[in-house]
Amino acid sequence: MRHQPGPEDRFSFGLWTVGWQGRDPFGEATRRALDPVETVHRLADLGAYGVTFHDDDLIPPGAADNEREAAVTRFRQALDATGLVVPMATTNLFTHPVFKDGAFTANDRDVRRYALRKTLRNIDLAAELGAHTYVAWGGREGAESGAAKDVRAALDRMKEAFDLLGQYVVEQGYDLRFAIEPKPNEPRGDILLPTVGHALAFIERLERPELYGVNPEVGHEQMAGLNFPHGIAQALWADKLFHIDLNGQSGIKYDQDLRFGAGDLRSAFWLVDLLETAGYDGPRHFDFKPPRTEDLDGVWASAAGCMRNYLILRERAAAFRTDPAVQDALHAARLDQLGRPTAEDGLAGLLADPTAYESFDAEAAAGRGMAFEHLDQLALEHLLGAV
Amino acid sequence: MRHQPGPEDRFSFGLWTVGWQGRDPFGEATRRALDPVETVHRLADLGAYGVTFHDDDLIPPGAADNEREAAVTRFRQALDATGLVVPMATTNLFTHPVFKDGAFTANDRDVRRYALRKTLRNIDLAAELGAHTYVAWGGREGAESGAAKDVRAALDRMKEAFDLLGQYVVEQGYDLRFAIEPKPNEPRGDILLPTVGHALAFIERLERPELYGVNPEVGHEQMAGLNFPHGIAQALWADKLFHIDLNGQSGIKYDQDLRFGAGDLRSAFWLVDLLETAGYDGPRHFDFKPPRTEDLDGVWASAAGCMRNYLILRERAAAFRTDPAVQDALHAARLDQLGRPTAEDGLAGLLADPTAYESFDAEAAAGRGMAFEHLDQLALEHLLGAV
Amino acid sequence: MRHQPGPEDRFSFGLWTVGWQGRDPFGEATRRALDPVETVHRLADLGAYGVTFHDDDLIPPGAADNEREAAVTRFRQALDATGLVVPMATTNLFTHPVFKDGAFTANDRDVRRYALRKTLRNIDLAAELGAHTYVAWGGREGAESGAAKDVRAALDRMKEAFDLLGQYVVEQGYDLRFAIEPKPNEPRGDILLPTVGHALAFIERLERPELYGVNPEVGHEQMAGLNFPHGIAQALWADKLFHIDLNGQSGIKYDQDLRFGAGDLRSAFWLVDLLETAGYDGPRHFDFKPPRTEDLDGVWASAAGCMRNYLILRERAAAFRTDPAVQDALHAARLDQLGRPTAEDGLAGLLADPTAYESFDAEAAAGRGMAFEHLDQLALEHLLGAV
Amino acid sequence: MRHQPGPEDRFSFGLWTVGWQGRDPFGEATRRALDPVETVHRLADLGAYGVTFHDDDLIPPGAADNEREAAVTRFRQALDATGLVVPMATTNLFTHPVFKDGAFTANDRDVRRYALRKTLRNIDLAAELGAHTYVAWGGREGAESGAAKDVRAALDRMKEAFDLLGQYVVEQGYDLRFAIEPKPNEPRGDILLPTVGHALAFIERLERPELYGVNPEVGHEQMAGLNFPHGIAQALWADKLFHIDLNGQSGIKYDQDLRFGAGDLRSAFWLVDLLETAGYDGPRHFDFKPPRTEDLDGVWASAAGCMRNYLILRERAAAFRTDPAVQDALHAARLDQLGRPTAEDGLAGLLADPTAYESFDAEAAAGRGMAFEHLDQLALEHLLGAV
Repeated sequence: MRHQPGPEDRFSFGLWTVGWQGRDPFGEATRRALDPVETVHRLADLGAYGVTFHDDDLIPPGAADNEREAAVTRFRQALDATGLVVPMATTNLFTHPVFKDGAFTANDRDVRRYALRKTLRNIDLAAELGAHTYVAWGGREGAESGAAKDVRAALDRMKEAFDLLGQYVVEQGYDLRFAIEPKPNEPRGDILLPTVGHALAFIERLERPELYGVNPEVGHEQMAGLNFPHGIAQALWADKLFHIDLNGQSGIKYDQDLRFGAGDLRSAFWLVDLLETAGYDGPRHFDFKPPRTEDLDGVWASAAGCMRNYLILRERAAAFRTDPAVQDALHAARLDQLGRPTAEDGLAGLLADPTAYESFDAEAAAGRGMAFEHLDQLALEHLLGAV
Repeated sequence: MRHQPGPEDRFSFGLWTVGWQGRDPFGEATRRALDPVETVHRLADLGAYGVTFHDDDLIPPGAADNEREAAVTRFRQALDATGLVVPMATTNLFTHPVFKDGAFTANDRDVRRYALRKTLRNIDLAAELGAHTYVAWGGREGAESGAAKDVRAALDRMKEAFDLLGQYVVEQGYDLRFAIEPKPNEPRGDILLPTVGHALAFIERLERPELYGVNPEVGHEQMAGLNFPHGIAQALWADKLFHIDLNGQSGIKYDQDLRFGAGDLRSAFWLVDLLETAGYDGPRHFDFKPPRTEDLDGVWASAAGCMRNYLILRERAAAFRTDPAVQDALHAARLDQLGRPTAEDGLAGLLADPTAYESFDAEAAAGRGMAFEHLDQLALEHLLGAV
Repeated sequence: MRHQPGPEDRFSFGLWTVGWQGRDPFGEATRRALDPVETVHRLADLGAYGVTFHDDDLIPPGAADNEREAAVTRFRQALDATGLVVPMATTNLFTHPVFKDGAFTANDRDVRRYALRKTLRNIDLAAELGAHTYVAWGGREGAESGAAKDVRAALDRMKEAFDLLGQYVVEQGYDLRFAIEPKPNEPRGDILLPTVGHALAFIERLERPELYGVNPEVGHEQMAGLNFPHGIAQALWADKLFHIDLNGQSGIKYDQDLRFGAGDLRSAFWLVDLLETAGYDGPRHFDFKPPRTEDLDGVWASAAGCMRNYLILRERAAAFRTDPAVQDALHAARLDQLGRPTAEDGLAGLLADPTAYESFDAEAAAGRGMAFEHLDQLALEHLLGAV
Repeated sequence: MRHQPGPEDRFSFGLWTVGWQGRDPFGEATRRALDPVETVHRLADLGAYGVTFHDDDLIPPGAADNEREAAVTRFRQALDATGLVVPMATTNLFTHPVFKDGAFTANDRDVRRYALRKTLRNIDLAAELGAHTYVAWGGREGAESGAAKDVRAALDRMKEAFDLLGQYVVEQGYDLRFAIEPKPNEPRGDILLPTVGHALAFIERLERPELYGVNPEVGHEQMAGLNFPHGIAQALWADKLFHIDLNGQSGIKYDQDLRFGAGDLRSAFWLVDLLETAGYDGPRHFDFKPPRTEDLDGVWASAAGCMRNYLILRERAAAFRTDPAVQDALHAARLDQLGRPTAEDGLAGLLADPTAYESFDAEAAAGRGMAFEHLDQLALEHLLGAV
């Protein structure tokens, strides 16, 4: 079975992922900076199809115009040389101290205006490089204390910002949609739009909701103890899964950004099963950080592992779905019944049906086992390759 | 300062709260059952204005029609005698074994139909008793294992159920709205619509979204580590806070249902501050469980404590908001700026403004302290009555 | 490869595990009671070697002496008929309402005395049935509020209780050791001795520390977000792993008691690797609860799954350890150096060695990658059977 | 009531606390570096009695001998000028990349030797400056993946390191004890000795256990969802509370290091109550990080808030303990009975007492309410100053 990735697998990586130098809250960088051009070539060699970036990843903050142009040109040449594409771009609205209280929802109005302008500028570059998705992670939009942020006012500002960005994209005629990335906390004590659900709800209040979807990240939802595939399923159900950030996390704690497959392996299996069966056709984007224990060899081993693990899980999930014993088990667990409407007969029919209530034998129905343990054991054995 | 509650404070309790007999996963009941009539009188004596119920709280499951009528009549007489109202009612779709795999999203279609009929029946009673809010907690809508529930199909069934209930209420002409109550887990490994955000997003996909809002519960959001006042603020922002369940929870663990004020006290302070300043005019409903260590004296002490704590916090929050030192601190922290639009000048104005980007001095802006610690210390001292 | 269990695998189950009827905080029982004799036969058929019990599992509370004797006789006959052994027994000090505030640390002295006598009585039965381990889970030893328990006084009482039990076992000449089972919370808000570490520390203050060890449970440590294999390693390091409770848990939430292999699969792999390589020779005891969605077929499928998953993981861990590529990777990650003393030359030698400090090139040392990602990827592929 | 701190309150701060520049995993520093001498003067002005440091806080890493001497001299002069003392010191074994895989348990033996030498060197300085406690936080002793660390071997190395340090202190005749600081995770995925319990247990296996105690930190235990006062109580019970780190944390998430009083306020109340009633006479050490939103005014406001909050809570706890209504409530909750031995009559007496078992009326005992809710409500009202 093939576990070597190729462009058709649509794997992409952020410049900031393999390029993370290992600085954490308690320690200095352990690795040198990577040149974006070097990264493009290495990712292409490993089998990726795409690369993504924050404005500041590609162009040093404060660069003069000619430096900026030179950086973009070199990057574009590397893309051309390797065939890598740029499916997504995003803005860094969190590293510079000016964003210490947020960007689109900073209390300081001039910071909010600067944040919007910084974003608008990079949207141009994203469009120029062919990206179709623009991710917005509002990592600093939040607070550590109760009076520091009026959340309703902040949501007004957040809506204002996204409405303006949407207006810009429409006016420019860019083929670009926004994907909002939720996170519950870190680096702020609490972040606004903390989960996939909160982001999906927020989008419905925007002026052009069709332009906005979500970019869920495995570890972010798991930091709230939520079932990641469940959240993805709701996003898919709402036609709002515009992008996805794959990585690993070991439970409720600081944001770990482990390589995909590390952390909760069973959840990763169900995620791949869902993405592959639900017809998600966007990039499989890895937003991870190779642990700072690693040198650059370890970085590339880690990146390769992300893709290889996805491919192994994809193979296992496919085998699970096609196994006749599994199909029997799904039937025994009445998954087919869940796919049927509850009341094709409508409200009137339901109310008129005595078998639905008056003569329904609740005790008998209660006695039927759901056969979920057998089904789950089959799934586990498929995952383990022990069938 | 008055800390004795009265009807004008709009405090309500569920029959199942003070009536909880103390059975937990590892132990038998420690208290006798309470007669709903007894409960109504005791709550009225304590200063509550409302009482709420599940169908099975009020009417023994399987009761004959005349028994049912008798139970309702006695209950209504107690309401009349005490002046207590029934602002909300709900359905028990979780205790009977027939709901072991859920109700509106059970894999078994006949269970789903039964669940709908059980709900419809109790909606009639809710309307008859004057309730304006119907809460729906889908505690068993979920799964412990990955293949046991096709979440997208389950959301289709959930939508179908709520659409039918909405249709019924409209057709009957009831003045009743639905409040969906999210919870992340317990009793299921993962529950659908796990947070306020997910429920708000789901509502937008219903046929009559205006009929549906949320009923957030303090402990449920805190079981996901989320900031409860932040979630309430988003619900208010979306005009969807139809009801609220007040209680206490000590962090991410099993559902504790402590009395209001126990658990995270600072969060409770910010919650009361928000409810009182945002114009929420619904009931302050306590959905708590007096610990099973308590006898009935302890039960009533615990219920009284819920109300008293709300009143103390309300007083402290009001003092905080009116303190001139606080108003200065809010200004110093630029909360007033957050209330202003970011771009009254529109997109064109923003793009044309060099002070927003080209000449913006990010370093200088970054150097401005936010003064949040001073503000938060003032809040803490108001909470502690130490100003 | 053999995945069918046999007595040599030393798998044991509690009567209360497969016998759990499915009552949870929000729902009634979904399954009938199992006769202990039936359980013994079914477990033997599935390949278990041992069965364990609480006093009240085997003998109905309040049974007359002759009923008690009859229950024990029937049970013993089933053991004889099947060859199953009783490696462990324990006391139920949590179900009856009398224990609502604890047993050995209940505030009420007469409850403490009763708890001790109940335990002493069952120790006799445990010894009579050949058990060598007596587990003590103090599930109700704790509190929901701060003043309700003076923890230092409670630890005095806990010590007094265990010292008395130890004295009894010594005086009776029983070949029986105690294994204390930690848990952080549920059913109490906080439980005393919440983790393996706290229990290990407590043991050191007992009069006969050699008689006491720990009985860690997978889910209990994971409810505190702790790395279970790390805790087991510390218990083994202290020679205190007297027993172990295997099950599954999906992160920090209510106690799930999933079958072994469900929940955190990678942690389960490292656990089996540790138990098998560290020479742990006690029972592999499953303390799980088949989900209440299951009928009895599902119960036995779930029990079989526990054992099968252990065997699969055992096979995969062995293959990992014997793979030459893994051995190379362990060397590259300097695990061999970790096995060497840091200062065979003693304090004086260390202080006199300039290469240890004065001439140590920290930058060069910092530049060496640890090669952990490659090693972990090998482990993951062994787990997945994808090598 | 006095809420202004003075030296008699024994408040101390680490140089690294107020000196934190605000660099976090996603952002650059927001504040300038503080000169240790400036810090000493500011802390003295605020009412602190002590200051603590890591070697690298006081002396720039890589400083020449004369620079080192100059730095120490200036610092000592500031201490003399202000009267501040140095009750504790510690080593930075986590910032430099050389410690990326740990210090005392790094896989690389030369790193372990360097870490020991770095520590020994700073122990000399600690003794010279009059410190009586040496804190050891092994923040990098851990792993992100299962095979990367052999935990039993690592505990051997940890024991070897502490035994050597103890030997050194004894040989030098220093009046210095070690306080081990546990933490469950961050910056490593899992850290060894993750809780107070694990550290207490580890100490018992050292050669000179009397030299070692613990330095628990509020937020660290709360990151594992543990009850902090309970852990402190067990440390006190074991005579091992050598030092304490006070701060605030909002539940299970990244390490927040909020000022004392922020986070879980009710837990802070019980902590102060315990420290003040249990006779803890060590420093009240604040190990917090003023949020990076703050400028230096905010830093000092935050530091002042730590002390002020402790004093307010101390006042409230004292009032609680002396309130006759509370004493009645404690009696009603049978706290006095918990203070009595369970079996003054010994094992034989207990076994011979029919009232302990044969004639014990468990139902009657079960019916006695514990009156904890009334007691906890009194506590809450004392905390709120609402009595």
